[in-house]
Amino acid sequence: MADPRDEPGPRPGVRLTRRGLFAGGAVAAAGAVAGTAMAMTRAPETVPAASPAAVPVLGAAVEPFHGVRQAGIATPAQAHAVFAAFDLRAGADRDGLARLMRLLTDDARRLTQGRAALADTEPELAALPARLTVTFGFGPGLFKAAGLPAPVEPLPAFSIDRLQERWNGGDLLAQICADDPLTVSHALRMIVKDARSFATVRWTQRGFRRAAHTQEPTHTQRNVMGQLDGTVNPVPGDADFERAVWSGDGTTLVLRRIHTDMETWDAADTVAKEFTIGRRLSDGAPLTGSREHDEPDFERLTPAGFPVISEYAHIRRARVEDPNLRILRRVYNYDDGLAQDGVPDTGLLFASYQADVARQFVPLQRRLAEADLLNEWTTPIGSAVFHIPPGCGPGGWIGEALLA
Amino acid sequence: MADPRDEPGPRPGVRLTRRGLFAGGAVAAAGAVAGTAMAMTRAPETVPAASPAAVPVLGAAVEPFHGVRQAGIATPAQAHAVFAAFDLRAGADRDGLARLMRLLTDDARRLTQGRAALADTEPELAALPARLTVTFGFGPGLFKAAGLPAPVEPLPAFSIDRLQERWNGGDLLAQICADDPLTVSHALRMIVKDARSFATVRWTQRGFRRAAHTQEPTHTQRNVMGQLDGTVNPVPGDADFERAVWSGDGTTLVLRRIHTDMETWDAADTVAKEFTIGRRLSDGAPLTGSREHDEPDFERLTPAGFPVISEYAHIRRARVEDPNLRILRRVYNYDDGLAQDGVPDTGLLFASYQADVARQFVPLQRRLAEADLLNEWTTPIGSAVFHIPPGCGPGGWIGEALLA
Repeated sequence: MADPRDEPGPRPGVRLTRRGLFAGGAVAAAGAVAGTAMAMTRAPETVPAASPAAVPVLGAAVEPFHGVRQAGIATPAQAHAVFAAFDLRAGADRDGLARLMRLLTDDARRLTQGRAALADTEPELAALPARLTVTFGFGPGLFKAAGLPAPVEPLPAFSIDRLQERWNGGDLLAQICADDPLTVSHALRMIVKDARSFATVRWTQRGFRRAAHTQEPTHTQRNVMGQLDGTVNPVPGDADFERAVWSGDGTTLVLRRIHTDMETWDAADTVAKEFTIGRRLSDGAPLTGSREHDEPDFERLTPAGFPVISEYAHIRRARVEDPNLRILRRVYNYDDGLAQDGVPDTGLLFASYQADVARQFVPLQRRLAEADLLNEWTTPIGSAVFHIPPGCGPGGWIGEALLA
Repeated sequence: MADPRDEPGPRPGVRLTRRGLFAGGAVAAAGAVAGTAMAMTRAPETVPAASPAAVPVLGAAVEPFHGVRQAGIATPAQAHAVFAAFDLRAGADRDGLARLMRLLTDDARRLTQGRAALADTEPELAALPARLTVTFGFGPGLFKAAGLPAPVEPLPAFSIDRLQERWNGGDLLAQICADDPLTVSHALRMIVKDARSFATVRWTQRGFRRAAHTQEPTHTQRNVMGQLDGTVNPVPGDADFERAVWSGDGTTLVLRRIHTDMETWDAADTVAKEFTIGRRLSDGAPLTGSREHDEPDFERLTPAGFPVISEYAHIRRARVEDPNLRILRRVYNYDDGLAQDGVPDTGLLFASYQADVARQFVPLQRRLAEADLLNEWTTPIGSAVFHIPPGCGPGGWIGEALLA
């Protein structure tokens, strides 16, 4: 197998595509902005020549597909995501799965690099990848069909769960993320078309974050509840991140669909909300600090002798002291419509990646289920667990080590 | 009433907020990029000081709310939209409607300028307007409730229609558009909360276009079918645009939900698709030309004596010779999920603005219904018509001339 890091063609790093593009445009500003944008662009549809106000075409930004690990996990979260789960058709076996994964890997390899899929019926929609990543996960049923021991199983039941079967489980997952929603739609269409002779669609869940460049990329985002969400998250590149997220070159994804009750949340005042979270809503600072990234002081007491950060505050219950046991959250919002009375069907697609579900996710979720004030407003309504196999090189395919 | 063009506070023009931000950053590049972004930013959450790679915070871009005409029509289309239609509750009358529209106007005035709504329960989500516009429309039922003659009525039936009642009609419309999906969600939540003591939600329709800066802003976008969509569209500022779109300072919106049958469309080959449209898929050039904006030559014949652009090609049937009778299309894609067999629930939110529905939209739609090859793959499944009243100034409210 060729070196999986041996990516053919242009392969700008993440920093380069997302931020360097702007920095580069600025540095080269003396009359050459349009030219700079052109030079860093792959397959632009058109860029008007010599327009003084030409804007970098961010749709051309590419994330590498080949690598020892799959993209879409350590990748800075793109603005749009769809998680699509499939049920294998009866009779699927290891050979069939190998054929399927060869096909889907080829689609992902092409689409993420801005090239049309092999049987692409809308090839023009492939030209702007906008940092597209396509990440594959294997559920328990896929291992069973392949006659292999399953490294993942459904989560145990938690007291707070109100799971709906329509959002649970799945044999195969495609996680499709990009900074452009049309790119996501097209990639989903191509993947589904190639998957469906082997599998039926179990569910699709669409989510969004702030659009690219709405905020500075390193800024912690707010979720639909208005909180800064993700202040404490392992940072790619750190040794802690390696140990917390990766097991060999794979990981696991727990995807929880968490409904938020906006009606009662909106009825709570700021004091109640901040007491619930343990952080200020305005800037995300812990109630014992003054800035978002200040360490919370869980020992500090009020003059009356009560903890400033409640025993049941979300940040205390969600606290994991050992950095090796933290989870990587890559959370999207969903907002899928309104009931006649105006109540929104909204919440979070809580995507968590960790080396070991039993040691990392389960104890944390149990602690939150036992006593987290936020449970008053948040309800898990879907749950699925997938093994994320390693990445592959130009000659390989996702799942090869398991299915070949 | 104060001069409606007398907008308080910073009011960058559209060019300035969308494109000038980049151009400005580039021109000032010699060490001052971060500072430039700051200066042009309203209420940024934070911008890291002196970061050499700081990116302009596009979320801060503001579209003016006050004006003789409502925003969201001549405004360059933002990336995300939700159209929310309401049914008035029994007993709604002119006084109640006036109260409602005062309330909603105040919400829109604040939110579009990056300020929290008056009773905003997630005020932090208001800080990044990302070119938010909130546009109100009045359906036939609203005029009836107010005891006024209605300037709009439902469209006549067309042979191609397969309308579903759940996507039809509505007494009141809020069209909410922004370049950021979380901004759209929050604005919708605020508008719905203030509307619901007066009205119930009839439907919501969410749509998307290319994310901001995926492409150069002036570039014609592709739709979910892969076509360049919007090549021939009136251009704001032209005299033709004025006559085609505005009637006094109001207009009408026809919103058609058009399902696209991707299964059979994907089964057609490029020649068939291009014959259907009358343009090349690759670059949008008419079949008689070489570039997107070349005038189609409807007279040209093939060597065998047939028209190069078929009598039934979409661009021939959709052609309106008189520029004053053209419609302004501001079309979004929708993509709302997958059936178990992988068939997508996808299509277009075809939003058309015109001075006179009967003279502009109806004859055009009739011509297309009679014979447009594209009908094979597109089906109108929802239809609604709204009067879009004029804009207002700082002391006024939308609908004042009708309801006060």
